[in-house]
Amino acid sequence: MNALTKTSKGATDAEMANAIRVLSIDAVEKANSGHPGMPMGMADVATVLFTRFMKFDPADPAWPDRDRFVLSAGHGSMLLYSLLYLLGYPGVTRAEIERFRQLDSKTPGHPEYGHTAGVETTTGPLGQGLAAAVGMAIAEKLLAARFGSGAVNHRTYVIAGDGCLMEGVSQEAITLAGHLKLSKLIVLWDDNGITIDGKVSLADSTNQLARFEAAGWAAASVDGHDPEAVAKALEAAQSSDRPTLIACRTTIGYGAPTKAGTHAVHGAALGKDEVAGTRAAYGWPHAPFEIPDPIASAWRETAVKASAPRAAWEARLAALEPVLQARFKADISGDIEPAVADAVEAFKKAASDANAPQATRISSQKLLDKLAPAQPNLIGGSADLTGSNNTKAADMKPVSPVDFSGRYLHYGIREFGMAAAMNGIALHGGFIPYGGTFLVFADYSRPAIRLAALMGIRVIHVLTHDSIGLGEDGPTHQPVEHLASLRAIPNLLVFRPADAVETAEAWQLALERRTSPSVIALTRQNLPIVRRDHTTENLSAAGAYVLRAPEGERDVTLFATGSEVSLAVEAADRLRAEGVRAAVVSIPCFELFAEAPAAYRASVIGTAPRVGVEAALRQGWDIVLDRDDGFVGMSSFGASAPAGELYKKFGITVDAVVAEARARLAR
Amino acid sequence: MNALTKTSKGATDAEMANAIRVLSIDAVEKANSGHPGMPMGMADVATVLFTRFMKFDPADPAWPDRDRFVLSAGHGSMLLYSLLYLLGYPGVTRAEIERFRQLDSKTPGHPEYGHTAGVETTTGPLGQGLAAAVGMAIAEKLLAARFGSGAVNHRTYVIAGDGCLMEGVSQEAITLAGHLKLSKLIVLWDDNGITIDGKVSLADSTNQLARFEAAGWAAASVDGHDPEAVAKALEAAQSSDRPTLIACRTTIGYGAPTKAGTHAVHGAALGKDEVAGTRAAYGWPHAPFEIPDPIASAWRETAVKASAPRAAWEARLAALEPVLQARFKADISGDIEPAVADAVEAFKKAASDANAPQATRISSQKLLDKLAPAQPNLIGGSADLTGSNNTKAADMKPVSPVDFSGRYLHYGIREFGMAAAMNGIALHGGFIPYGGTFLVFADYSRPAIRLAALMGIRVIHVLTHDSIGLGEDGPTHQPVEHLASLRAIPNLLVFRPADAVETAEAWQLALERRTSPSVIALTRQNLPIVRRDHTTENLSAAGAYVLRAPEGERDVTLFATGSEVSLAVEAADRLRAEGVRAAVVSIPCFELFAEAPAAYRASVIGTAPRVGVEAALRQGWDIVLDRDDGFVGMSSFGASAPAGELYKKFGITVDAVVAEARARLAR
Repeated sequence: MNALTKTSKGATDAEMANAIRVLSIDAVEKANSGHPGMPMGMADVATVLFTRFMKFDPADPAWPDRDRFVLSAGHGSMLLYSLLYLLGYPGVTRAEIERFRQLDSKTPGHPEYGHTAGVETTTGPLGQGLAAAVGMAIAEKLLAARFGSGAVNHRTYVIAGDGCLMEGVSQEAITLAGHLKLSKLIVLWDDNGITIDGKVSLADSTNQLARFEAAGWAAASVDGHDPEAVAKALEAAQSSDRPTLIACRTTIGYGAPTKAGTHAVHGAALGKDEVAGTRAAYGWPHAPFEIPDPIASAWRETAVKASAPRAAWEARLAALEPVLQARFKADISGDIEPAVADAVEAFKKAASDANAPQATRISSQKLLDKLAPAQPNLIGGSADLTGSNNTKAADMKPVSPVDFSGRYLHYGIREFGMAAAMNGIALHGGFIPYGGTFLVFADYSRPAIRLAALMGIRVIHVLTHDSIGLGEDGPTHQPVEHLASLRAIPNLLVFRPADAVETAEAWQLALERRTSPSVIALTRQNLPIVRRDHTTENLSAAGAYVLRAPEGERDVTLFATGSEVSLAVEAADRLRAEGVRAAVVSIPCFELFAEAPAAYRASVIGTAPRVGVEAALRQGWDIVLDRDDGFVGMSSFGASAPAGELYKKFGITVDAVVAEARARLAR
Repeated sequence: MNALTKTSKGATDAEMANAIRVLSIDAVEKANSGHPGMPMGMADVATVLFTRFMKFDPADPAWPDRDRFVLSAGHGSMLLYSLLYLLGYPGVTRAEIERFRQLDSKTPGHPEYGHTAGVETTTGPLGQGLAAAVGMAIAEKLLAARFGSGAVNHRTYVIAGDGCLMEGVSQEAITLAGHLKLSKLIVLWDDNGITIDGKVSLADSTNQLARFEAAGWAAASVDGHDPEAVAKALEAAQSSDRPTLIACRTTIGYGAPTKAGTHAVHGAALGKDEVAGTRAAYGWPHAPFEIPDPIASAWRETAVKASAPRAAWEARLAALEPVLQARFKADISGDIEPAVADAVEAFKKAASDANAPQATRISSQKLLDKLAPAQPNLIGGSADLTGSNNTKAADMKPVSPVDFSGRYLHYGIREFGMAAAMNGIALHGGFIPYGGTFLVFADYSRPAIRLAALMGIRVIHVLTHDSIGLGEDGPTHQPVEHLASLRAIPNLLVFRPADAVETAEAWQLALERRTSPSVIALTRQNLPIVRRDHTTENLSAAGAYVLRAPEGERDVTLFATGSEVSLAVEAADRLRAEGVRAAVVSIPCFELFAEAPAAYRASVIGTAPRVGVEAALRQGWDIVLDRDDGFVGMSSFGASAPAGELYKKFGITVDAVVAEARARLAR
């Protein structure tokens, strides 16, 4: 339907775009499930982008200096799968295209990172692809500042839909990108005027171009079905000193005779007649899933062309100063430096020896002062709570729009945007990001924490003020259900260290776990050291361990985490004075304990009556407790008062633990 | 420090503002905790707003036609408490001001709805006050469309900080407000250029005025310490046909000799010397907490003036047509109409009789077709998933910018903004809001769901596609941990009905529960009717009940929710055929079951071995299960495939339930 401008590729732009369209239509039709409208609408834009602008290497999808492409509108996954198939990405075969949305295929409903080669991030939850792309663009600038533009010089491209732009996280992402002048970030907005409920105008009247400009972006609007106009806008974007939004005016379901331009084409198979009509409109006589040779060849040639810059890059990298070259490889490898274990070991010993009460958020900061030099690719940050989260290590210089040589990001009051950007930084490679906010605001960043867990990437959330122990700020700021709700997320490690020693152990474990994000929940208030005997072994690695064993058989076992471990220890002491043999088990990480061998778990849990102690709700404690075991914790929201008074008000006291233990013994 | 313009009030604007300032300073100083900077900076603006523009009645804080004031920057709570005290709101005494942030005071760290008279919504989690205010402004227009501007004609004012505007939810809120042309919404932005980490420019470069204008707002910037400039801007805002942002350029900690204009004054007591210097700068010689009479009187006169419009309003209401007047009172009362119970009863009977498989989302829609006429103040909506959430009742006309007589809101792709707006609609009074999205996206709206639970307000979340049963969309869209994480929120009712009958019961309970928000989790896929014997009694009211009792003693009890109840029934049938007496317990609502009498709970749980069945994680199931009881459910994220295949892949089958039951019996 476009003008037949044969290119050097031996096929027209329109023919190449139609290949994406028909593959998308056919796959959705066969699955009888999926979203054909977006790929049909954005195929022209994607064709221009991939054939004329992007650099990548299907033979090595992880090539560090590739351009990144993020399909933020993840429901249009067939756009991406069609491209990956046509470009020859490993494993993305015609058979897999035909198995779209089927069990264990390489072509699931939404693109999944780590599952399909060429998928840079899992998308589907709207807005998050765009926000992760901001993180990727940040990582590129950080890396370029360290290793030079010879080693690192690539762009991040995003296709986003109306949904991505309506989601609040997009605002956090675009203002952060605008502030940081991420000029290599280019967002192609599928401006089709249609959402699931109908026209965008049912629910939104935003002037998106003006909005992005207000956030410091360049913005343009083009006919998304005019390849030259798209190309011209992309050229301008490439030379902009700001991130760029290109509004691509498109027709959703382009070419579908009765459904184009309507929400009917968004999320359902077209149906037999509509498919036939659409093929006719494209002048596409070929059988389902069949891409005739001139077009298929043109796409394969595209892949060759796109990977051409690689040789020169390899040469430039080889020419890098050896120390820098080694550093680059180490940073990209994601390996943890041996110096980290040394720093943790020294910190643990010093903390046990000093035996000085300290808030774990302070312990964390003091440890970070040591970890930062030990692990040079650690990138810190906070959502505007730097002094409260204690996330800024001594030698961490802030990143600014004009200087990316720093290592600390002021993410602003953007918890969700921060979490999503950290995902992007981790996905990009070269860095280990961590960022802080209050534990209660994990609710704000939760969708991105979940996505990190689903992707299996290493991102560390430093979440301080982890209970009613924060005191006067009251119930809006006091987490009570957050430990439970975070522990509920599969593949997320939730650490709640009991003192400075366990804090160091938690950091070590979080850093070493490459395939999971971690939460480290830290106190505002001072905690005594409970780990007074130094051990080289990381006791937290098993998730739980016997901190105090009584002489002889246990009469009762007290289980606790974080700030309540010292309460349990004190209760055990009191009980011992009364002739009751109480063991104390610290459980810094439920998830690691669940992974521990069954025999070890049984030995830790024991057979004596049990009492759990945590200044939080009981949900999740069935990892060690049965229904008639005791629990000292919260059963409601908190309140505003000094912390000590709150612990009394809510009955989280040594007295209560002793009473619960006695009640179990009396049975 | 301002020009001494004595007003008719007998005190100058500056003196009245200084009263707010010193109360805030003194309260924070005494508590040695809190946020003085914002009240000091915004006192001038607040004085102009309350003395010259707002209508309210301290003698009746719930007067329906009052202007609403939302302190979105809730950490500046002393601004609000000072005002409430000076204006004579019941219970907000000098003694309570002196007990700022102390246990059980009326002046907790952040303003708490339902706890302190005059607090319109709980704030503190940033951005949400602004977003709730959008809901209040929507409610005003909805109510005015029904009862006329004689009965309903008031404004919603917001004080928001930089944090509120950086949070993504603000974008969802302002674009919704701009789209709906909520001209009676006026936001006063405390434009002080400072956040906790330092200058706003550390993390943000947004042109906020341009951003709001892009969202369809009027926007102006004024000197926030110039009362006449603020007044002029407020006058302009009152006559705008769009919502208005007024950027009030202020100095945080205004008047503090060394800390003004810095982040040092944001969130900590000033300290003795700084307090003395500040009082000197204000020319305020009075003792702590003491407001001298001319100023105190001026504030009391303000209250009299602000409540003056009330008499005329009472007269207009009394003159309303009797039917309309009765409807107004009924809607404001929040009572549930008797017709609701009739509709539920009829629906249940018809569903049991028809015994036709149906997705519970469809059951919900068909019930809503009956509930909408029965309860005229029910307001529906969806975050752009109307056809998937099945939230639009047959006679619900959409609300549009030019017509608020409808009852259905297209909230757009704004889950968090929707949830916060629903909070505002519920807080405003006159309506019962419900809104839909996918269960997995409860993660996006979670902060507002939590706030509704904390406030104890009635908001209903219709969350469909409630398990891997949604099929091909895959793990990004499949909730596995969401039932657990929602059940973790105190005072939130989470319903997961098993069929059409329980769906109707869930709706009835959610509507009748005035002091809790509810989630109704519904399936995408068809479910058989398990409640085939009609009962008038709402069996779900007890949270759980024995759905199938075997003859004689139970050998095993199968517990299930939602789509898995029919699996449990089938498993029980299979077991019976093998001579095993299995009871089936349906648990549509864990929270109501936890509230049920202990004896009832014990009778339902029984003493036979137990197996739980839910296509979700086990966390939270210790409400009925011990560690060695059986569970058939999920232990990881889901996958993309047709639903039936996923149930098999993840082992949630009748076979598995039978096997788990047999394993328990074998012990």
